Amino acid sequence: MEPLSLPVYADVVAAALRIEGQAHKTPVMTSRTVNELLGAEVFFKCENLQRMGAFKFRGAFNALSRFDETQRRHGVVAFSSGNHAQAIALSARLLGIPATIVMPHDAPAAKVEATKGYGGHVVVYDRYTEDREQIGRDLAARHGYTLIPPYDHPDVIAGQGTAAKELLETVGDLDALFVPLGGGGLLSGSSLAVRALSPHCKLYGVEPETGNDGQQSFRAGRIVHIEAPKTIADGAQTQHLGQYTFALIRQHVDDVLTASDAQLVECMRLFATRMKLLVEPTGCLGLAAALPMKAALQGKRVGVLISGGNVDMAKLCEWL
Amino acid sequence: MEPLSLPVYADVVAAALRIEGQAHKTPVMTSRTVNELLGAEVFFKCENLQRMGAFKFRGAFNALSRFDETQRRHGVVAFSSGNHAQAIALSARLLGIPATIVMPHDAPAAKVEATKGYGGHVVVYDRYTEDREQIGRDLAARHGYTLIPPYDHPDVIAGQGTAAKELLETVGDLDALFVPLGGGGLLSGSSLAVRALSPHCKLYGVEPETGNDGQQSFRAGRIVHIEAPKTIADGAQTQHLGQYTFALIRQHVDDVLTASDAQLVECMRLFATRMKLLVEPTGCLGLAAALPMKAALQGKRVGVLISGGNVDMAKLCEWL
Repeated sequence: MEPLSLPVYADVVAAALRIEGQAHKTPVMTSRTVNELLGAEVFFKCENLQRMGAFKFRGAFNALSRFDETQRRHGVVAFSSGNHAQAIALSARLLGIPATIVMPHDAPAAKVEATKGYGGHVVVYDRYTEDREQIGRDLAARHGYTLIPPYDHPDVIAGQGTAAKELLETVGDLDALFVPLGGGGLLSGSSLAVRALSPHCKLYGVEPETGNDGQQSFRAGRIVHIEAPKTIADGAQTQHLGQYTFALIRQHVDDVLTASDAQLVECMRLFATRMKLLVEPTGCLGLAAALPMKAALQGKRVGVLISGGNVDMAKLCEWL
Repeated sequence: MEPLSLPVYADVVAAALRIEGQAHKTPVMTSRTVNELLGAEVFFKCENLQRMGAFKFRGAFNALSRFDETQRRHGVVAFSSGNHAQAIALSARLLGIPATIVMPHDAPAAKVEATKGYGGHVVVYDRYTEDREQIGRDLAARHGYTLIPPYDHPDVIAGQGTAAKELLETVGDLDALFVPLGGGGLLSGSSLAVRALSPHCKLYGVEPETGNDGQQSFRAGRIVHIEAPKTIADGAQTQHLGQYTFALIRQHVDDVLTASDAQLVECMRLFATRMKLLVEPTGCLGLAAALPMKAALQGKRVGVLISGGNVDMAKLCEWL
């Protein structure tokens, strides 16, 4: 196997220039309540306030910006039932590139509508009998589409790294940064920004307790594959890290932590009642892992990345 | 009756200096969805992200900052079951002034706890048999407390005006500004900032449909008193404008509009799902009145003041 050409911080810098004026520079918020709870100074990077409601727009727009003429003409294909689908559809519309999104036939109607609303052509598949990756690859081969995977791609990773770059440029050095971990795009991108801008900062990935493949992989030193986990953190239901994301996480991350669904619900409540912010369960992972670390974080400067805010209101109300 | 000495824009400027470093300079947010709905460029001033969750902190802190030595030593008294109580309690704590808050005996436990949490001494009364204004005045007379009313006070009005000042200084001239209207503190304060910084801007106050005493007063040219209105906009259940607020509103406001509870719920949903923001019903009044004015606002630059975000999650879920 030939060695991977991993993205570096210069790629994050280049991505930041490409997304400028298209992605929001999302606000960094603070909460006296959280500061008092932790005895620390906590800075929240609010990617729930990003376009289409999640950081995914950064990586998708960066990847599509790098298409050459032929790629642009033929179009992009992506498979996703969640934020990546909308991020690709919206980025493609902004760049005038045709987009095909492969979604499960039982995906929430709202998500299918949102993807179509951004101009994406939706192809449905049966998630119990068909393989979405195969469908994506077939479509790519047949029509000349370029496949952009949800996380394991250097341009996607570099784009996601711009969120932590903005955070560190806004607040300066941090002692610790907590980042939600699904497939690892956000965490590995963040790791490039952290090691360049605040090298001594402890960097933690956070997974749902029931879906700790990243933690297992980090500790075993190889990519561990798990069954699809049951958790309300639908953005982190990935079954394994990618080649690129695992290599960067192994190299730059200090530890991988976990949080339970009950902890995520408590954080959703805290965000809503104290900070007036709507955060999806996956977006709560960072804070959920930081709260029990009160002793270690005492007096520190702590960053928490809120990954997204796309939560169904009916479900939110059920959980609370 | 001697003529009122109305606050002027210079008082808003002075208030801005007093609250600097204590109140948040809340963010101004935009939403492509809302811009497309209205065919306009809409700027939201997010006072739901203010300290204690509402603009009320601005006026309370400004008023208490102006206390002399004797007033500081004796303390402040306020009557309120809502955001004003918490604003006075928090401001008093920050300034080292003792605070007594008169609250109805059936006020929500959460609000009583929050007020106590900020260090306020809570005195309860029976809202069906006792007069809170009388209790407040009695306490003031007996103990030498200074009474700070929730809206009809020059220093409170000047403090509330700092929100619109910040908005206009951030985004520049506006064609129209929509402001929630209860007792008129926020609207009359805003009117001073608007007439100074963007004199041609149309300024609208917005009330709940069932509690349109301000609209009646504006049109009749005198303060009209109504029965306590039934509405989910609990911050705008006031029964009449004040002497100061009415004088300023009459002078500077272009019209007073209304919104139904159903419209407020739709706006709460829109804020939550599209902008990931939690807004209390009263805070939705501005947007609720702007949305039906699509034709008039076409191509315009429109400001919307979100007054607060202190909404009970259980109630929110019930409404949605």
